[in-house]
Amino acid sequence: MVAFCLFGAGVMGTVHAANIADHPEARLRTVVDVAAAAGRAIADQYGAVYLDDADAAINDPNHDAVLIASDARTHADLAARAARAGKAIFCEKPLDADVAKAEAGAREVEAAGVPFQIGFHRRYDPNYRGLHQAVASGEIGDVALMRIVARQPEAPSREDVAKLPANLWKDLLIHDLDLARWVMGEEPVEVFATASCLFAPWLKEAGEVDTIAMTLRTRRGALCQISAGAGSAYGFDQRAEVIGSVGMAAVDNLRSTTVERYAADGAKRSNPPADFLERYTTCYREELDHFIDALNTGAMPTPGLGDGLQALKLAEAGIASARTGAPVAVTG
Amino acid sequence: MVAFCLFGAGVMGTVHAANIADHPEARLRTVVDVAAAAGRAIADQYGAVYLDDADAAINDPNHDAVLIASDARTHADLAARAARAGKAIFCEKPLDADVAKAEAGAREVEAAGVPFQIGFHRRYDPNYRGLHQAVASGEIGDVALMRIVARQPEAPSREDVAKLPANLWKDLLIHDLDLARWVMGEEPVEVFATASCLFAPWLKEAGEVDTIAMTLRTRRGALCQISAGAGSAYGFDQRAEVIGSVGMAAVDNLRSTTVERYAADGAKRSNPPADFLERYTTCYREELDHFIDALNTGAMPTPGLGDGLQALKLAEAGIASARTGAPVAVTG
Amino acid sequence: MVAFCLFGAGVMGTVHAANIADHPEARLRTVVDVAAAAGRAIADQYGAVYLDDADAAINDPNHDAVLIASDARTHADLAARAARAGKAIFCEKPLDADVAKAEAGAREVEAAGVPFQIGFHRRYDPNYRGLHQAVASGEIGDVALMRIVARQPEAPSREDVAKLPANLWKDLLIHDLDLARWVMGEEPVEVFATASCLFAPWLKEAGEVDTIAMTLRTRRGALCQISAGAGSAYGFDQRAEVIGSVGMAAVDNLRSTTVERYAADGAKRSNPPADFLERYTTCYREELDHFIDALNTGAMPTPGLGDGLQALKLAEAGIASARTGAPVAVTG
Amino acid sequence: MVAFCLFGAGVMGTVHAANIADHPEARLRTVVDVAAAAGRAIADQYGAVYLDDADAAINDPNHDAVLIASDARTHADLAARAARAGKAIFCEKPLDADVAKAEAGAREVEAAGVPFQIGFHRRYDPNYRGLHQAVASGEIGDVALMRIVARQPEAPSREDVAKLPANLWKDLLIHDLDLARWVMGEEPVEVFATASCLFAPWLKEAGEVDTIAMTLRTRRGALCQISAGAGSAYGFDQRAEVIGSVGMAAVDNLRSTTVERYAADGAKRSNPPADFLERYTTCYREELDHFIDALNTGAMPTPGLGDGLQALKLAEAGIASARTGAPVAVTG
Repeated sequence: MVAFCLFGAGVMGTVHAANIADHPEARLRTVVDVAAAAGRAIADQYGAVYLDDADAAINDPNHDAVLIASDARTHADLAARAARAGKAIFCEKPLDADVAKAEAGAREVEAAGVPFQIGFHRRYDPNYRGLHQAVASGEIGDVALMRIVARQPEAPSREDVAKLPANLWKDLLIHDLDLARWVMGEEPVEVFATASCLFAPWLKEAGEVDTIAMTLRTRRGALCQISAGAGSAYGFDQRAEVIGSVGMAAVDNLRSTTVERYAADGAKRSNPPADFLERYTTCYREELDHFIDALNTGAMPTPGLGDGLQALKLAEAGIASARTGAPVAVTG
Repeated sequence: MVAFCLFGAGVMGTVHAANIADHPEARLRTVVDVAAAAGRAIADQYGAVYLDDADAAINDPNHDAVLIASDARTHADLAARAARAGKAIFCEKPLDADVAKAEAGAREVEAAGVPFQIGFHRRYDPNYRGLHQAVASGEIGDVALMRIVARQPEAPSREDVAKLPANLWKDLLIHDLDLARWVMGEEPVEVFATASCLFAPWLKEAGEVDTIAMTLRTRRGALCQISAGAGSAYGFDQRAEVIGSVGMAAVDNLRSTTVERYAADGAKRSNPPADFLERYTTCYREELDHFIDALNTGAMPTPGLGDGLQALKLAEAGIASARTGAPVAVTG
Repeated sequence: MVAFCLFGAGVMGTVHAANIADHPEARLRTVVDVAAAAGRAIADQYGAVYLDDADAAINDPNHDAVLIASDARTHADLAARAARAGKAIFCEKPLDADVAKAEAGAREVEAAGVPFQIGFHRRYDPNYRGLHQAVASGEIGDVALMRIVARQPEAPSREDVAKLPANLWKDLLIHDLDLARWVMGEEPVEVFATASCLFAPWLKEAGEVDTIAMTLRTRRGALCQISAGAGSAYGFDQRAEVIGSVGMAAVDNLRSTTVERYAADGAKRSNPPADFLERYTTCYREELDHFIDALNTGAMPTPGLGDGLQALKLAEAGIASARTGAPVAVTG
Repeated sequence: MVAFCLFGAGVMGTVHAANIADHPEARLRTVVDVAAAAGRAIADQYGAVYLDDADAAINDPNHDAVLIASDARTHADLAARAARAGKAIFCEKPLDADVAKAEAGAREVEAAGVPFQIGFHRRYDPNYRGLHQAVASGEIGDVALMRIVARQPEAPSREDVAKLPANLWKDLLIHDLDLARWVMGEEPVEVFATASCLFAPWLKEAGEVDTIAMTLRTRRGALCQISAGAGSAYGFDQRAEVIGSVGMAAVDNLRSTTVERYAADGAKRSNPPADFLERYTTCYREELDHFIDALNTGAMPTPGLGDGLQALKLAEAGIASARTGAPVAVTG
């Protein structure tokens, strides 16, 4: 039985709390959030305790693990403190809003040697796993070109970008950067990106973007093109494909139903899912199952600290490239 | 809170027990099965009591509802007894193995006026609901022709056909007969069927079939063709479409992933789901949600007694048609 | 070089004339039609001669072959006369409007031993050929069930049914009957059909139908369900699939483009082709190529006389079944 | 009747010769090629004359139009000479192997005011036209992001790259550059590209590439990502999509048939067409029809000189960007 202390009672905290409560080998013991009402609501729902004292929560010997789903600016610091207290850590992405803080936190977590998992849930999606497997098995040969689409319906709000600047890069695209690394099985060493703010005036005012075209290049010369954006009018668009020397594998969008309706003017199908919650519901559960299994078996959970850090570095490189107009080198 | 007594600890009893246990407004109080070990196993798993005395279970005032998932030959009798005891009834299909017993049981349930729902779970599948909606909304115009495919991978076993003769008709095809009635919104008044036993020798010995072609005709002249069978080599094949005067709506198979893998010799996609449990998991939960909601609001749950009876009559008509080689009239 | 005499200057005569004129090893020498204006127009377009004397045309020693695309009531008679004159014959379907006349004509053609091909062009469609191949190669195992959809947008006109009564059966569905025989590789020995007139009042007055559900059964017990009709609101619907013991093969509709347009309310694709000319353009050319190749190599062209006759017998059996309500046996 | 002089008896010359010969309002009068045997073969096939004197051919008053399908290094020069002789010009892409020569030639053609069409045949493909229409009609709103895939099975040969260095850019990708301009309806002003040589050793030796990732940016900030390459193992991969503010439109690959074959291990579909001839057959015919129609009506044919030049400039910018690693600005 893994006793969890949850940091963050927002959307992701709510998702994780439900999955912890539902898991036969886990229980939610404590919820910490600066917003007391939200924290209390979740705590009450699952018979947990609300605390506003992070230190007390972290150091409570009754907690086996912390689940960090708080403001991204607090991730690395909380992880480091939990590591010092010897807790296992499940940390939402990004590893931190700030890459320097992320690196510092990562050093402490690594030094402590505690189990650590970063919330790149797509690694637990059967579709992306199939794509990964098609590459890893050698079935499509050597990777030449990967193509990813990640477009969300809603633009980040003013509040979102205040909490996590370069929001689209670090909140959405970061998943694709992990996906690229994991599926291609090679490290990008150079990044080029260009970005625009086409639809959301408040993002423009804040110096943020809603449309990104990014290119990754590995040492061997394999390429990856990512199309990311907000403002998708037809649902949460999540596709990927990998072209190899002897084949290709592609993951298409899910659709809410398989119904196709034919009329005189054409045949209409369902759109992709409305948002990430609809698309990835089962993945959040699967990644938590994996984390708990790893704690039980003593294995290191995955994706880990290095994955969280490398994706963040790639995002920073993309941000820098889009700002300077030049490619940016990335080291592993 | 609805307290359930479950009859039957087989595959379907196991599915329903899990969903009852998981429902916030329901609890599994008692499990009854002639196979004590199976019954006890489920009872123990969910903190329920195992009983081998059906009468005691039915008349226990602590039970609000019975869920009948036992041998089909016992369905109508158990339903009648539960009705006399004033219990709400959720009954797996078919309403009974025998149409005369089903009619007698239905009369008693109707007389008692207790809530009754039959387990045609496809009515709770978002895909088939979309098909129903396309017809009910008038979007495709007047129905001309419905086409249904229902093919399961496994042939019924010797034991299956001993318990429920005409097995494929009453265990599998009966879902399609309900689907046809519900989606077309019209009653078939004539049935023609022809059937073969092509692949499963033990079915042939038992006088059973594994391949059925059935045609339904409504009073207005709308037609429905059902292709049913066992021995599907590529998964649990479940498709349907309705052609109308101004359009068409079709429901395709789900696939386990959206991955498509291209090689020099073609592009390969996932097959349909492996079996009914994989295909209809969420529908079992949804139909139970509906039953419990209906009990809570005092509404009559649906599909009901008449639906269970009419599908069984259509199946009997199909069996008779396949045996005699002539069309068979059906009354409502 | 094959010199053709064309009988019939209607839609199909026009298609065949163009293909003859375009073929490097064929030329259109003569056009015969009771409608002089139509006949002359085609003749003029391709540098051919218009004749109103069928006998003179048939017996003209300059003709190597006749292409019969006239009124279906004249097919068998023209074929018999051409056979007596030693001409090679390409005959549009049906072999005749009347099965007795078709049988009589077939006897004469067979006696004369001249090359004969019937216009079942789907045998020259790459999609249906792929389906045929999937069965013939053994890839899907033993055939259990074939399913065919054939629905045309336009209902037959009053004039159409006057010329060819039981129009939908003998003009449209007859293709599917040939398809079933050819793809399944087995002869149906029993036919059941039911039909309705749901949309076209003038067809109802004429005792014709616009919606047909037909079931074929082979001696071995393999089944085939055909859904045929007129009044298809979304294009010329032409699909088929064969379910076998170890696999399944399906042919879907073509679509005019691959464009899919996504909007907030769903994703819209192109409909199937508008009509048979759009769908089967290249097949008319391919079947003629085959006929000319066969003449050049001395091989017997295919599909042949027996195919034309058997499809017509199956259509007659379907018509009888729909009228009497009982299954009808068919002999080879 | 348009009398054509064809320059070039290679693959494209052969395609165009057949279409000219087949066109009711055109005839092929002369074929010019340095390879006499190839030139004579085409000339003989269509009753044309073979000439090895380009000047005589260009200045022959019997020619209305020249069709330039020769070595790319000769395009602009031939076009300029034909323009001075007052001939209408249909010129294969690229406008020239060399951008300076292309610009010089373009100035002369423009000065002469003769009709000029460049062979970007995708503008005559119904699929890409549908995509163009979805954007031009405003249906998908403002363009945010276009994505294009263009991958050909065969790598360019040593001979190909000797004749046209930067082969993949100027022979294949140039179509996509025109497609982007035409479909987006905006001019790219900045280009970034990165490229690799992953599969074809002889290309590596020649300093050529087989895998290209290119990003275009318009003044407004709309983006386009092009994935181009050689060595596609699963056919000629040609896809495109445009994401806009209120919708998305996508063009998928054609497939050689619609057959899908299901077996225990999955469902297999046809691959994309094998090569550009199979994919674009009808487009070559359509673009020539348009050219002849334009000559007949006095309209300027399209795509024109500016289109040919701008696509070439974008290709040169891509080549420069891939070489220098920096984005390159492009002017209109």
